[in-house]
Amino acid sequence: MNKLYVIKIGGNIIDEEVKLNQFLASFAALDGHKLLVHGGGKLATKLAGQLGIQQQMVEGRRITDAETLKVVTMVYAGFINKNIVGKLQSHQCNAIGLSGADGNLIQAHKRINAAIDYGFVGDVDAVNSSLIKSLLDQNISVVIAPITQDMQGQLLNTNADTIAQEIAKAMSRDYEVHLIYSFEKSGVLMHTEDEGSVINEINPQYYKELKDNQIIFAGMIPKLDNAFAAIQQGVKRVVIGKAEELQQLISGNTGTSIIS
Amino acid sequence: MNKLYVIKIGGNIIDEEVKLNQFLASFAALDGHKLLVHGGGKLATKLAGQLGIQQQMVEGRRITDAETLKVVTMVYAGFINKNIVGKLQSHQCNAIGLSGADGNLIQAHKRINAAIDYGFVGDVDAVNSSLIKSLLDQNISVVIAPITQDMQGQLLNTNADTIAQEIAKAMSRDYEVHLIYSFEKSGVLMHTEDEGSVINEINPQYYKELKDNQIIFAGMIPKLDNAFAAIQQGVKRVVIGKAEELQQLISGNTGTSIIS
Repeated sequence: MNKLYVIKIGGNIIDEEVKLNQFLASFAALDGHKLLVHGGGKLATKLAGQLGIQQQMVEGRRITDAETLKVVTMVYAGFINKNIVGKLQSHQCNAIGLSGADGNLIQAHKRINAAIDYGFVGDVDAVNSSLIKSLLDQNISVVIAPITQDMQGQLLNTNADTIAQEIAKAMSRDYEVHLIYSFEKSGVLMHTEDEGSVINEINPQYYKELKDNQIIFAGMIPKLDNAFAAIQQGVKRVVIGKAEELQQLISGNTGTSIIS
Repeated sequence: MNKLYVIKIGGNIIDEEVKLNQFLASFAALDGHKLLVHGGGKLATKLAGQLGIQQQMVEGRRITDAETLKVVTMVYAGFINKNIVGKLQSHQCNAIGLSGADGNLIQAHKRINAAIDYGFVGDVDAVNSSLIKSLLDQNISVVIAPITQDMQGQLLNTNADTIAQEIAKAMSRDYEVHLIYSFEKSGVLMHTEDEGSVINEINPQYYKELKDNQIIFAGMIPKLDNAFAAIQQGVKRVVIGKAEELQQLISGNTGTSIIS
């Protein structure tokens, strides 16, 4: 099977032009099939602020009312997605930017939660892997904004880490998938503030211990849950690490590897 | 050759939810290959106003500074494009929304004009017709936002009527292309305020007369220039008319036909 890199870029990198450009140059230089999933929460929060649309976060998740959905659709699928694609073109990497609505790429349903109304937030039902494959076969890299849809005309805001996981799993039927969660930290850290304390490898049992001892907590838990879901359902390799070290993450020299 | 409908939707329709939905239902119901190009200037002007970004228009063209480019990228390629695609999915029309940056769909260069600095406005150099064809061959309708790029990482704001013309011409090598400019009026009118005064047919000589007599003026001139450029370079048929009458425009019962 051919290799496919599914790379999530998130955190603060998207907001910093120099770091983002450097990352995109590394991404463009990767050999073979590749797919990028991006977030953009910081820019969305900024635009919402400028428009006077109050943002409410519950456990790190954005409550998405109708006005906030407009904002994230504009920022993720418009501004960030098209700027990334434009930059990749300048690096001789032919890329196509899609949301989950395009070509019915990602079908989702509005999250039902008895306790919290998340608003227009979607949980993924299905990924159209054949469309992605047809684009990769044309040597086009795919750049995905975390907006999905329910086939009833409703767009939905969806967590980008989860989208990366779902796509990685779906593509594993046709490719040897390497899933890279890249962000502003060097990996999963033993001591939050110590970038030198990267944990090289985590298996499910060690993950449980790390959680029990509260070494892993907060926003890192959903990310690792996504990583384990991927590795347990056909994805070949999952690595978490620093976006600025993309090449080293790919070659396995840095970051945290998730193993089953 | 297979038929391809290239349909431009513009004017006030995009801003009116009920009319837009009705239009999209008609678009979805069209048999065969189809491609939609949309504008969205009114919503862009509104968002720019909310953000305190002053808009300057010269002869109906928007001067696009860096902040305005962000706004149009968000509104055209994000909000409008993804909402249209989402609605089409709900009408069982599988659609994919692209900007000119995606898959290097539309290459352009920044307009050079000694008299007026239009800012980040692009004039089209080339259309990637093979990407469009590969999507149409998969029974996917293509929805295009009027943002292009220069292959150097610079996005550019580009007139949607011109994009429709350039795409129609480029696709004429592989398809029998029918180009429909649909907007809020019933066609080219003999008397501006009289919707009953639609001119059925215009050829180049008659066009000259209509301009000389100032029956056609202002914003209608670039639209007709685009229509004639298309019909003179391989496009089978060009019709201008009311978005709410899409089916009748297609069948040739209403609107203004441009003939060579």
